[in-house]
Formats: sequence, C-alpha cells, structure tokens
Amino acid sequence: MESKQTEISSIGEFGLIDRLTKNFPLRNESSLKGVGDDAAVLEYGDKEILVTTDLLLEGIHFDLRYVPLKHLGYKAAVVNFSDVYAMNGCPKQITVSLGVSSRFTVEHIEELYSGIRLACEIYGVDLVGGDTSASVTGLVISVTCIGEAEKENIVYRNGAKETDLICVSGDLGAAYMGLQLLERENKVAAGAKEGEEFQPDFAGKEYILERQLKPEARKDVISSLKENGIKPTAMMDVSDGLSSELLHICKSSDVGCRVYEDKIPIDYQTAVMAEELNMNLVMTAMNGGEDYELLFTVPLTDHDKINKIKGVSVIGYITKPELGAAMVTRDGKEIPVTAQGWNAFS
Amino acid sequence: MESKQTEISSIGEFGLIDRLTKNFPLRNESSLKGVGDDAAVLEYGDKEILVTTDLLLEGIHFDLRYVPLKHLGYKAAVVNFSDVYAMNGCPKQITVSLGVSSRFTVEHIEELYSGIRLACEIYGVDLVGGDTSASVTGLVISVTCIGEAEKENIVYRNGAKETDLICVSGDLGAAYMGLQLLERENKVAAGAKEGEEFQPDFAGKEYILERQLKPEARKDVISSLKENGIKPTAMMDVSDGLSSELLHICKSSDVGCRVYEDKIPIDYQTAVMAEELNMNLVMTAMNGGEDYELLFTVPLTDHDKINKIKGVSVIGYITKPELGAAMVTRDGKEIPVTAQGWNAFS
Repeated sequence: MESKQTEISSIGEFGLIDRLTKNFPLRNESSLKGVGDDAAVLEYGDKEILVTTDLLLEGIHFDLRYVPLKHLGYKAAVVNFSDVYAMNGCPKQITVSLGVSSRFTVEHIEELYSGIRLACEIYGVDLVGGDTSASVTGLVISVTCIGEAEKENIVYRNGAKETDLICVSGDLGAAYMGLQLLERENKVAAGAKEGEEFQPDFAGKEYILERQLKPEARKDVISSLKENGIKPTAMMDVSDGLSSELLHICKSSDVGCRVYEDKIPIDYQTAVMAEELNMNLVMTAMNGGEDYELLFTVPLTDHDKINKIKGVSVIGYITKPELGAAMVTRDGKEIPVTAQGWNAFS
Repeated sequence: MESKQTEISSIGEFGLIDRLTKNFPLRNESSLKGVGDDAAVLEYGDKEILVTTDLLLEGIHFDLRYVPLKHLGYKAAVVNFSDVYAMNGCPKQITVSLGVSSRFTVEHIEELYSGIRLACEIYGVDLVGGDTSASVTGLVISVTCIGEAEKENIVYRNGAKETDLICVSGDLGAAYMGLQLLERENKVAAGAKEGEEFQPDFAGKEYILERQLKPEARKDVISSLKENGIKPTAMMDVSDGLSSELLHICKSSDVGCRVYEDKIPIDYQTAVMAEELNMNLVMTAMNGGEDYELLFTVPLTDHDKINKIKGVSVIGYITKPELGAAMVTRDGKEIPVTAQGWNAFS
C-alpha cells in the first residue's frame, strides 16, 4: 500500500518551504537568521567567508531510476562541503534551491531534504535559505555553501612548488565503478521478463555502491592535516577525476608533475569491477571522477609528517613547468596526463 | 547574415567558464578570490553577511520568445540585489550557475552574461563563482547573492508595530502589464501571415515594457532612507505582489494592516494597458508581482521625514493583529487582502 501523497499544488510554494525547513535548527552562532526573510544573515568576526555553489540537473548529473532521493540530497550537500574543505575551510551554511516538476510529490521532496538534513547534521552545517519553484521537466537542485576559514589557513590551487609531494586521500575510481554497476543492473532489470522478480546483484560490491550513492567529504583529512601541523601548498577535491584536477593544480601553480601508476590508491572492489567490465583500471582511477577525495601538495620536508596520516597516499611530486604533467607507468614509461574529466557538454 | 556561432562542446565547460568570466574584474576589497578555485573567498570585518538565492527556469520564470537574453541576465542579477537591499544591506558578490541545453551557443550565453555584467557594473557587485553545466531541456539560471550590512541597520520582516505607516516605493503593477503586453504581441506575431512583416505595437508603452524586461533594484530608496535618518521597522521587496508581501509582513510581525485603494501608486501606462485588456487595475497592482519595489513600515513619528522622499508613497498603516489585513476601497468598504501572489506550482 502506498503511503499518502500530497500534491505540491495543494500546499503551494510557501507551504512547501515551511514544511521542508521546519526541521532545520540553526547550529552555528554565526547563523543569525536563516530561512524566512529575503536573505540569510551571518555573523563573522575575523574569519574569511568561503562560498561555493553546485547545480545538479536530472538526466545530466543524476538518474532517479537508480539514485534514491535521500541519497541524492545527501550527495548534493556533501559535494559542496567538499569544495569548502578543499580550501582548508569549514562549511557553515548552505542554501538549497529546487525546481520540481509535477511528477514529484511533497513526500518525494521531503525525502530529498531528509538527505540534505542528514548531511547538515553530520557536518554541522546550517540550511539558511533557498528558492523553490516548479519546473517544466525533471528535478533541478542548486546548492550554495558558505564556509569560513582563518585567512592564513586558506589553501588555493596555485601554491604548488617544485619538489612538493603530491598526496591524495582515500582511494580513487570507486564512485565511477559504482555508477557502472548501477547502470549495468538497471539494464538487466529493464530486460527482465514481466512479472519476473528482479534482484540486482550487489553482493561484494557494497563499497563502490556507497562511494557512488553516498560520498563523504574529507573533513577528517583536514583535521588530521591540522593536528599534524601540515598546511598544504595547494589543494582541491577530486570531483572531475584525478587527471583533470592534477592539470588544474599544474596550470594554476605554473608547475609540472610526475605521478606513479603503482602509487595510485585503488580499492579491491574497484579493481574487481573494472576487470568484470573489461575496463582499464588505472584509467578508471585517473578519470573516473566523483571521488570527493582531497588532492594536495606539501613541501618535501613534510614527508615524515604525511606518512603518519592514515589513508593518505603520496603519489608523486611537482616538477618544473617545462616537464609537463605525466604519469610514470610500472615499466618506467611516461604518459602525458590528459583531462578526460567529465564534460557534460560533449 | 548570422554571426559566427560556437558550439559549447567545442570549448568545453572550462573553456566556457574562462570565456564568460574573464571580463569580470573584482571591485570590492572584500572579494579576495573570485572564480577559479573551489570556493570564493570574501573578507569581512565587523559587517554582517547577507546571502540570497534565486532559481530561474525556462518555461516557468521566463519565455525566450520575447525576453532577450541580455535582459534576462540583467534581471536575474538585479532581483537578487533587490533581496539584499530589502534587508537594508548592500549586495557585494554573486555566484551564477547555469544549466544550458544544446540549442544554446557560446554567443547566446555570452549575451546572457553581458546582462549580468551590466547589472554588476551598475550596482557595484562582483561575480565570484558559479557552476556551468549542460541541461536536458532549456535554460536554468541559479543566482546567489552575498551582501553586507551593519548589524544595527538590518531590517527584517518582523518588526512592524501598530500605528506604523506602510510605505511603498515607485509604482505597482507595471511589470505585470508589461508581461501581458508581450504575451499579446507574441500571439499576434504568431498569427501573422507567412512572409508578412510583423511590427509589434509598443508605442506609448515603453515604461511597462521596461519594468518587465529590465527591472531595477531600489538602491536609491535605501540611500534616501539613510540620508533622511529613517530606519524602517520592517521591509521586503515586492516580487510576488503587494498583497502577498503585506501578508508576509503581517504574519512575521504579528500585526494587521489597512491599505487604501486610492493610495496605491499606479503609473498612467499601467492604467491604460489594464483598460485595453479589460483587467481590474487595482487587482493588477495588488497581485501583479515582479515590481521589485520596496515595501516597508516606519514609525508614525517619521511621517514628515517620509514625505520628503520623492517617489515613496504612504499607502496605509499597521493595526492590531485581530483586525487582519484589509484594503479600504474608494467608497470606504474593507476587502480582505488575500495572497493571489504568483504560485508556480498551481
């Protein structure tokens, strides 16, 4: 039996906003005024404000046939937090704007918001505003995140220096393999005979699924760096893929780089899935995207400190710009790093 | 001859962003870092930060058959500035996210951005970030605006007190009548015979057209209030329509109100257009929306000061909550104010 569904039109825009935002207590002292006026009011002393925004469109960034709405909400929030951590900052507030087509009910949108709320709780972030509207087709999610940081702690992309070590947290390629798995099972389901019960085969693949559906921002890595007295010289999060992000840092910092194929951290489940699908494992890790791990550079002198941090891998080093960006393969060859990062326009 | 068009796919997302943002110099000292990193960095001292966001969707909020892209960009920015002024603040930065379907070229998007740039120049606001992506259908525009204000100067919706005067800047209903005009001429154009040259009839209606296509935020009114030593007790901008906004202030402030039909400021062109279309003029002014005028309340003792400000009308007063919100007609009857404000879900 399906639970009661409410047409959005029956409660209107303001009714929907009331319903969506009533369970968002303000947690931060700096959140003076959240939802309910023309603008949110935030109080800051000597801190710097960080602002980042992401637009997620149905059919482009997500497919509701296999992404639960709660997970989608969680991810929409977390990927913005990740951008703030990638500046060595701390996310504090978000605004969420939604465009919602008529096939969605209030309950659907509440499900989406329950994921946003969970992310806000876990990361200590306040929802302070937004805009909700109808859309002609599909779901549109726009999230803006505001964070803070001490001026002297902010890390940009442009500070990498020759001989710096290149580090990455966690492992790469898993989110992309999770997406491949979801797409495969979805195709199998579509091909199943009518009336036949279809059970997707996710056994032993829980990790790559979770990496795709419920990514986390690496708040813990930022804390570990601080505890160990490390301030990266450059940092970004890995959203488009390692190759693409390495090129961003090289371009912004006017440097080159060498990364070692055998140092790139890859999980066992990612490797198994790539083999099942007959895909090149290293290319998957280099270009997969949506990992939301932190890619950063540290001075060579921080080598011992970095080794103390669990779950961070040193994958290479920064070079003079003339040397370009390249990956050193297991047999010692150099392959240019090229941005095969995700391009929604192609 | 059509000018050269570039496929977005040929320059990719980053190429497009580079192209779109290269003409946006940072103007404010507080804009330490704009486009080009994971997040924008803003520096504030003892000021409060204001954040507001709007999502505009093709087919819902705008119709590209009669809204030029440059005007659309201008309006998308200005309506956000208006929200910040409505808090008695000053807009300082915006982020702009776009979802763009394949029917748009780079030149189209540049045209849109030229409007955003113009608005930023006129209002002294910096573009500091955004996200650009493909969309399956149509154009999606999400703008977030960050502003600042002295803590003691911020005006919320909830401060209106019994006997306060209700004031509104400019005139109302013109933007809505401009939209009606555009829709009428568009229908006539669609009915014109093939090959027949169609000239829309906009003579003597320039003002209502401009109010719809190129609204302004009332920065000047905020300045005048300050110069005259007036701090409103409550304030909002009129985006959904006067009726809807009056109810917001009454609800937030726990008060009632009386506004006088014959005090509601209406331009001559608005009146002419309403007559041509056989529409109720006062209902148009009360419910039209998109005026972006400022609605505010001031203590009765500020009566003389308010009268000195050109282009501000006193339209009524605040009452006890038990009296509800009503409009007093020319013949002395009281009609309840109801929110017929624009509801995109209905």
